[in-house]
Amino acid sequence: MSTLTLNVSTVSPLGDRVFLKVNRAEEKTAGGILMPDTAQEKSQVGKVVSVGPGLRSGNGSYAPIDVQVGDQVLYAKYSGTDIKLGNEDYVLTKAQDILAIVT
Amino acid sequence: MSTLTLNVSTVSPLGDRVFLKVNRAEEKTAGGILMPDTAQEKSQVGKVVSVGPGLRSGNGSYAPIDVQVGDQVLYAKYSGTDIKLGNEDYVLTKAQDILAIVT
Amino acid sequence: MSTLTLNVSTVSPLGDRVFLKVNRAEEKTAGGILMPDTAQEKSQVGKVVSVGPGLRSGNGSYAPIDVQVGDQVLYAKYSGTDIKLGNEDYVLTKAQDILAIVT
Amino acid sequence: MSTLTLNVSTVSPLGDRVFLKVNRAEEKTAGGILMPDTAQEKSQVGKVVSVGPGLRSGNGSYAPIDVQVGDQVLYAKYSGTDIKLGNEDYVLTKAQDILAIVT
Amino acid sequence: MSTLTLNVSTVSPLGDRVFLKVNRAEEKTAGGILMPDTAQEKSQVGKVVSVGPGLRSGNGSYAPIDVQVGDQVLYAKYSGTDIKLGNEDYVLTKAQDILAIVT
Amino acid sequence: MSTLTLNVSTVSPLGDRVFLKVNRAEEKTAGGILMPDTAQEKSQVGKVVSVGPGLRSGNGSYAPIDVQVGDQVLYAKYSGTDIKLGNEDYVLTKAQDILAIVT
Amino acid sequence: MSTLTLNVSTVSPLGDRVFLKVNRAEEKTAGGILMPDTAQEKSQVGKVVSVGPGLRSGNGSYAPIDVQVGDQVLYAKYSGTDIKLGNEDYVLTKAQDILAIVT
Repeated sequence: MSTLTLNVSTVSPLGDRVFLKVNRAEEKTAGGILMPDTAQEKSQVGKVVSVGPGLRSGNGSYAPIDVQVGDQVLYAKYSGTDIKLGNEDYVLTKAQDILAIVT
Repeated sequence: MSTLTLNVSTVSPLGDRVFLKVNRAEEKTAGGILMPDTAQEKSQVGKVVSVGPGLRSGNGSYAPIDVQVGDQVLYAKYSGTDIKLGNEDYVLTKAQDILAIVT
Repeated sequence: MSTLTLNVSTVSPLGDRVFLKVNRAEEKTAGGILMPDTAQEKSQVGKVVSVGPGLRSGNGSYAPIDVQVGDQVLYAKYSGTDIKLGNEDYVLTKAQDILAIVT
Repeated sequence: MSTLTLNVSTVSPLGDRVFLKVNRAEEKTAGGILMPDTAQEKSQVGKVVSVGPGLRSGNGSYAPIDVQVGDQVLYAKYSGTDIKLGNEDYVLTKAQDILAIVT
Repeated sequence: MSTLTLNVSTVSPLGDRVFLKVNRAEEKTAGGILMPDTAQEKSQVGKVVSVGPGLRSGNGSYAPIDVQVGDQVLYAKYSGTDIKLGNEDYVLTKAQDILAIVT
Repeated sequence: MSTLTLNVSTVSPLGDRVFLKVNRAEEKTAGGILMPDTAQEKSQVGKVVSVGPGLRSGNGSYAPIDVQVGDQVLYAKYSGTDIKLGNEDYVLTKAQDILAIVT
Repeated sequence: MSTLTLNVSTVSPLGDRVFLKVNRAEEKTAGGILMPDTAQEKSQVGKVVSVGPGLRSGNGSYAPIDVQVGDQVLYAKYSGTDIKLGNEDYVLTKAQDILAIVT
């Protein structure tokens, strides 16, 4: 049984997926994002680690994705697949579930 | 853990999303919008703060959005993601859920 | 807090929406529209106040809407968003939910 | 309050809708349409009174409808909006819910 | 009230519909179609009486239907609208619900 | 009442359907397909007897199907219509429900 | 009754399906993939054994699949059809359910 040893750099998202490092949810007061209960359940902040090639259109070309590595983004919380690498939380989510760039 | 400090200007909506500042729901009498109960639950007034690039069509171009920064709009109340910045309520909603411009 | 003062002329529907003034439901006998119970719940008569630009097709042009300001129309009752202006009932509905012109 | 006085000729269906005068459901024996229970609930006979322009395709043209004024047709019973004009039953239904021409 | 007198020849299916005369379900042993219980409920044999023009594609032409008058076919049992003409059972079904030609 | 006598060769699938002879489900040990319970319920092996013309695309041409008469295939078990011919089990299934060729 | 003897090399996936050998789910600590409970149920690691031709587009060409034989991938756990060959677990899954390449 070969042991599977992975780290962040070996995860290459496919299609229109984006690999994000999750920010721990904290209530920000001075101008930061303070999310009312409903929002706290609905959206989350994360940092882009890697970006898929995009979806292929009919003629085989890829539809580009509008976020880049290093962007801080707000995304729909329950849309992706959670992944733990060491002690850190990551998520593989679709580009369409990323609501805004927040830096 | 880097602290996330945001303000209105750093929120750039993606795709066909629009970032609105929410007007406090008040009953207007003299010609203002007085919403019968059902409507009060269904639509809400807000001011456009920033507008996404629009959805990408097959050939990579963006489909423009028909509202501009500063427009007062009526939108479907439960369609977006609520965001609190300081003491103010904001919402990230899709262009298709904005019903009308009201100024 | 700026007070929001609106009247009919300031409501500009977006997309394929139409802004209607609602006719009070009355049972018409002499040749008028007398709606059997089921229909009374399903359709309603209103007058076109303003018309949106229509939906944008792929090439950016608008698909025109087949009703005009002043038309008396029959529309599907629970399809739009109700709005009260002063003592009058209005509704923002989609063109596809307008069944027929009735004048 | 203006009184709304309508008759058959003032109802102009929109889109792909067809305005039908409903035939009273009667069991026909000699070769006529005798509908087993299930069908009696599922389809109904009516006469075409007026026909909408058809649905607009992407290039703005209308897709023609395959029935004409005066045709006797079989249609899916619960698909349209019922309308009573005087003592007669009418229905506004979509072309796709008209199953066959029966004369 | 005009009496509606119909017979098989006056039923002209619309769109992609096909008018079939239903074969009485009988268990065939010697090589015939013997349908296990599940299938007996799911498919049925019938003879093509008349065929609609087909569905209209965007450019207004009709997409042809792959069965002809006189073909014996196997179709999905609960997909159409049943019609009784005299003592015979008929059904108006969609071409896509006809599974195979069986002669 | 004409008696319907059929055998395998008279069944011509329509559209994108494929006519398969069902292999009796047996647990294969030495390298054969041993299906864990969940799979046993989800997929089944069969032999291609005849293949439909494929689905018609907009321009009237048929989209070819990627299996041929004689192929041994794995298909989704509850996707088709079962047919018994004599003592043998057959099924009419859609090409999209055939998972793999297994010889 | 012909006995069906298969091994890995005889399974040729159809359409946009990919044939994977399943990695036994193990909790990896030092930098490996440690999946929080929710993820453990939602995604799984496997090795690509064979790849289908891809889906046919309208003009008959195949849309290529972005993984190759030998890739280690993360896929949505309950999306495919499980297959046991000897003592090993395999799965036939769709390309769209493969989330990322993880080596």
